[in-house]
Amino acid sequence: MTGPTITFDDAVDAILSLARTYGTRTVRLPDAAGCVLAEDVAADRPIPPFDRAAMDGYAIRFEGQDAGKVFRVAGRIYPGEMWSGDTEPGDAVKIMTGASVPPPFDTVVPVEETETTGEGGDIRITASPRKGQHVALAGEDAQAGECLVSAGTLLQPRHVAALAAVGKWEVAVQNPPSVSVLATGGELKEPWEKAEGPFIRNSNAHFLLSALGRCGLRQIEYLGIVEDDRDALTTRLRAGLRSHVLIVTGGVSAGDTDLVPECLAACGVERVFHRVAVQPGKPVFVGVTPGGTVVIGLPGNPVAVMLHFAMLVRPFLLRSCGATDCLPKPIWLPLAEGVRNRSGRLKYAAARLETTGDTTYVQEIASQGSGDFVSAAWAEGVLEIPADADHLPAGARVRFYPVWGELLFDGNN
Amino acid sequence: MTGPTITFDDAVDAILSLARTYGTRTVRLPDAAGCVLAEDVAADRPIPPFDRAAMDGYAIRFEGQDAGKVFRVAGRIYPGEMWSGDTEPGDAVKIMTGASVPPPFDTVVPVEETETTGEGGDIRITASPRKGQHVALAGEDAQAGECLVSAGTLLQPRHVAALAAVGKWEVAVQNPPSVSVLATGGELKEPWEKAEGPFIRNSNAHFLLSALGRCGLRQIEYLGIVEDDRDALTTRLRAGLRSHVLIVTGGVSAGDTDLVPECLAACGVERVFHRVAVQPGKPVFVGVTPGGTVVIGLPGNPVAVMLHFAMLVRPFLLRSCGATDCLPKPIWLPLAEGVRNRSGRLKYAAARLETTGDTTYVQEIASQGSGDFVSAAWAEGVLEIPADADHLPAGARVRFYPVWGELLFDGNN
Repeated sequence: MTGPTITFDDAVDAILSLARTYGTRTVRLPDAAGCVLAEDVAADRPIPPFDRAAMDGYAIRFEGQDAGKVFRVAGRIYPGEMWSGDTEPGDAVKIMTGASVPPPFDTVVPVEETETTGEGGDIRITASPRKGQHVALAGEDAQAGECLVSAGTLLQPRHVAALAAVGKWEVAVQNPPSVSVLATGGELKEPWEKAEGPFIRNSNAHFLLSALGRCGLRQIEYLGIVEDDRDALTTRLRAGLRSHVLIVTGGVSAGDTDLVPECLAACGVERVFHRVAVQPGKPVFVGVTPGGTVVIGLPGNPVAVMLHFAMLVRPFLLRSCGATDCLPKPIWLPLAEGVRNRSGRLKYAAARLETTGDTTYVQEIASQGSGDFVSAAWAEGVLEIPADADHLPAGARVRFYPVWGELLFDGNN
Repeated sequence: MTGPTITFDDAVDAILSLARTYGTRTVRLPDAAGCVLAEDVAADRPIPPFDRAAMDGYAIRFEGQDAGKVFRVAGRIYPGEMWSGDTEPGDAVKIMTGASVPPPFDTVVPVEETETTGEGGDIRITASPRKGQHVALAGEDAQAGECLVSAGTLLQPRHVAALAAVGKWEVAVQNPPSVSVLATGGELKEPWEKAEGPFIRNSNAHFLLSALGRCGLRQIEYLGIVEDDRDALTTRLRAGLRSHVLIVTGGVSAGDTDLVPECLAACGVERVFHRVAVQPGKPVFVGVTPGGTVVIGLPGNPVAVMLHFAMLVRPFLLRSCGATDCLPKPIWLPLAEGVRNRSGRLKYAAARLETTGDTTYVQEIASQGSGDFVSAAWAEGVLEIPADADHLPAGARVRFYPVWGELLFDGNN
């Protein structure tokens, strides 16, 4: 009994609804990138905290018709200095970018728009300033107390910059779940083993271990390869169920050797779904134990594992790490060539981007099938073809998900 | 003397031409993602290594007009097994996905397209098979000896999958350069320090340290904050020049406190360029010592640091790690709203993507200026506006670089 086949959207909703979180810990800023923030972080002062000079030049009190006027330079202000000298009308102070513009000054004239008069350091303004120009006003970027980075944000280096700026050296972040990985299949050998005759090497588990590490997970256990044998499989699955999340590859289809669902049932795992209307990877299985361990059974073919990791598993793991935003975000782009989808199901395919003139096209990567990890290695992302699109012509607009980080790097240099 | 202002493209070419590499080391596959491969990795066997069943079902010898025929089931083949029984015309063998299809069989009939006859395990085929269907032929994805992953590839988990599949458990990867980071500016305090009055906190260095870590660099030294004082600055710069790469923030403009270029000259650093026709971040400085240490002087404003890191520094670091492809790859997309570029220089701006219907638009993030790291924290990438485009209307097509990894995660869930 595999239960009904559900849509991919329903599968995503179902797996996300199983996500729990695993408490928080405190990390220092250098370790924060890649973690999910567990607290709202607010500005401790207005940003900028004072009226800040945005150019090197002279601070003046704007009066209108300043072009051509001569100012007495009453002092100078460097960044990190407070200036509080007496000033009279017609005074200016020399000021450097980043310094605090003291009252009554309100306008900065860039040094290039001034000239020295030759008289005791006086300067003449050579262009017409606007009132308040080149001064970033206190609080114009954010008010004190304003939330800058929300709980649930997956921290990137530019969030780290914001945290540093408000003096948040130690931050509360979510703990990720522990994850176990188990490969099944009598044909599998490890990369360090010889593989001859009908044997092939286990690539799926090593893909997953690598991808899990890149997701910032910390407790990852590899349970090795188990043959398609009920007792051996059940024993190994029980070991995996001690983790918060167990990912199994292979053994989820309907063949004689597809024992994973029944062995999981024997371990007390309740099926959430088994069969999703998606190509490839229809037999994907998700279940949960009474204790809340989530089991994801992926098909054995490598391309299905890569696609499902990007579109289903990683969103679930990110949500389990407390991330608010966890789904891949599509970019709509035109197809470079026509594509077919004879499956009658939603289809995901490895794809690349190609630019001609000022248009960027999505190109499906020609592949021999879902076992063809060789061509998938060229992918820059995932192309989505709707279930009802038997054929889409060149130029048709499709969703492209740049989930594989390749777009950072152009092949042209 | 700052030398001529050069174009951003010329700046990229100039800095990439300074990149050296730093030898290789051997890592095991679990540590390989994020490293740059230092050897070509080829298939050790054909892929697939044997004619492989792609479905669960029955292997037959195709003869034509097979629909309705009855076959004797002469045996069964599971993945990892070799079968070599005697066969006669009219025989089939039960076979599971991933198993080796033995000669003389050449075609797999899915179990759903068969029925049992009730006579001693014989089966009848209920649909017309095509010759060779559901068999992945040996070598159809790659030939033995074919290069699967080239030297110079920044390894992603899906490359790890390919390496695992060909038994490459230990791989040669490039060593990254050592990098030092120095922040300059009398107004700066560290995130763990109090910042009052005219002081602000150092966010640039912590952004860079975080971003460098995310680039896979291993030897990163933080030299702290130095005030705008010639002696102190020169001493600290000399310490930084012991690294392969030194990144300095602030002090590169033309104000009284912009001492970095002259102090670097005093340390024997030869200027490669200083001033690039780009907005923001025009005063960016690049130099090199006789020993080959590359110094990058970034302006002090946080948004310029983030943009230049993505568009200039990271490409250089990736090339220094031996990566063949190191430049951000643009996606051409229409503008959601008109943009202005009054700088007369190439402009980079933080941007987000917004989808309406089946069109994805680029939206410049409204910002108060290049010091506004608050709004930059919302960015999903970088928008490029040409130097001669004083104004581009909504709908104009622009280059968008998804350099910040945000596109993995949609805000809608």
